[in-house]
Amino acid sequence: MSLSNCRIVLVRPHYAGNLGATARVMRNFGLSDLVLVAPYASTSDLDARRMATHGLSVLDAARVVPDLGDALADCVYTFATSAQTAGVVRGGTIGTAAEKMPELFAAAGTGPVALVFGPEPHGLSNEEVGRCHGLVHVPVDPVFGSLNLAQAVAICCYELRKAWSKSANDARGKPEIPVRAVAAFADQERMFEHLRAALTAVGFLFGEKGDSLMHGLRHLIGRAQPTHQEVKILHGLARQLLWAAGQMKPQDDDPPPGDRHDKSDA
Amino acid sequence: MSLSNCRIVLVRPHYAGNLGATARVMRNFGLSDLVLVAPYASTSDLDARRMATHGLSVLDAARVVPDLGDALADCVYTFATSAQTAGVVRGGTIGTAAEKMPELFAAAGTGPVALVFGPEPHGLSNEEVGRCHGLVHVPVDPVFGSLNLAQAVAICCYELRKAWSKSANDARGKPEIPVRAVAAFADQERMFEHLRAALTAVGFLFGEKGDSLMHGLRHLIGRAQPTHQEVKILHGLARQLLWAAGQMKPQDDDPPPGDRHDKSDA
Repeated sequence: MSLSNCRIVLVRPHYAGNLGATARVMRNFGLSDLVLVAPYASTSDLDARRMATHGLSVLDAARVVPDLGDALADCVYTFATSAQTAGVVRGGTIGTAAEKMPELFAAAGTGPVALVFGPEPHGLSNEEVGRCHGLVHVPVDPVFGSLNLAQAVAICCYELRKAWSKSANDARGKPEIPVRAVAAFADQERMFEHLRAALTAVGFLFGEKGDSLMHGLRHLIGRAQPTHQEVKILHGLARQLLWAAGQMKPQDDDPPPGDRHDKSDA
Repeated sequence: MSLSNCRIVLVRPHYAGNLGATARVMRNFGLSDLVLVAPYASTSDLDARRMATHGLSVLDAARVVPDLGDALADCVYTFATSAQTAGVVRGGTIGTAAEKMPELFAAAGTGPVALVFGPEPHGLSNEEVGRCHGLVHVPVDPVFGSLNLAQAVAICCYELRKAWSKSANDARGKPEIPVRAVAAFADQERMFEHLRAALTAVGFLFGEKGDSLMHGLRHLIGRAQPTHQEVKILHGLARQLLWAAGQMKPQDDDPPPGDRHDKSDA
């Protein structure tokens, strides 16, 4: 399955800059099928072309149709988008972009699917929303919920690509992002023992407070879940400190090698 | 917890339209703290104001600072953003916006956190990325991965709001987990400088590998989000190492103070 079956439909868009920004962000997320329904803005407008940057191929391939029905004719599944869903009473499929894009992407396995965005000032009419199978919204601050058109497209395309990526990974059975390989517990233990010996040799750990200081350091480093490479760096540090301690001039019996951790560091 | 502790930092932004679009989308998702580092574009530019629409309050409250360090000084946790993470070899905290925004939002419970975006043409420098605790990217089509700046901000803010929303929902059913008080960024910076000086004095950091070793240590410790008390312990360690270095017998010119981090620790 790919994203090539996922269509973006802009109904009566007013601003050429939004056409360009939409084309660009579609390209960013791997979509290419753009349809404009009775647009006020033109794809040949300078603002459109300037905002499109590397999305010019999407912009130039955009189809212009007179009616929403033409844009959706061959689609197996369609979602309208809306900033507000509170007033919309429908028995059907309503949800957030995160909830609904996986559903839309799954349907794209059987044929073209569409996401429909309304004109900048007021969004889709109720009649237009009613012609789609479902309604999608992006959760925003209700105090000022009006997303820029191209931003709304961006977030839906982003969620579509997440759905595509998840599906591709599920197929492969592994995550897309390589996970950090945390060093094994026993390797960490050896490193902490090495570090303790070294910090004792340079006089940082001694007496009553030594144990609690070492505990503090262990806790800090352990929390970061060090990788094997980082454990090696800390072994290297321990070796260097042991070497440095060996180079120190013999100390008098007292005072003990300075307990510097108590002093203020203002 | 709210989103008011979540800061958006734009480093050297070039286009005024992006300032406005950023302010608008921040307002859409309930963020308000915008900082501009040495911007080329001005918030008073007509394009900025036109794109901001209802985000003008965010735009007008934006702070302008000369350096990234000023923008992050009071932050407890910071993420750089990058289109490409493939070339970045770091063991640490790298992930997608969906993975990392919950982490950033959780840290916002203890103090200000920041998301840092680079300039439009080329993004953040490696040095700038290195000053943050982690690196976030938005999964895009590798063929054309360059997101518009305001679109990248939109997707991160969208994920932050999702984290906020999830946390608000979780909080209704569960007791709140006590949070650790993470040391401020500037305090961590002072400690890392102190530690760098000390590790250089004992011969652990030197030559070509010194920077990458220090980077590795910074990253390890930063990932653990050290508390104020832990920062004090590390200051104490630095003081002790500087003292120990002062006790060392004068070294011959060669060989250099042993490069122990290369040796195997089997």
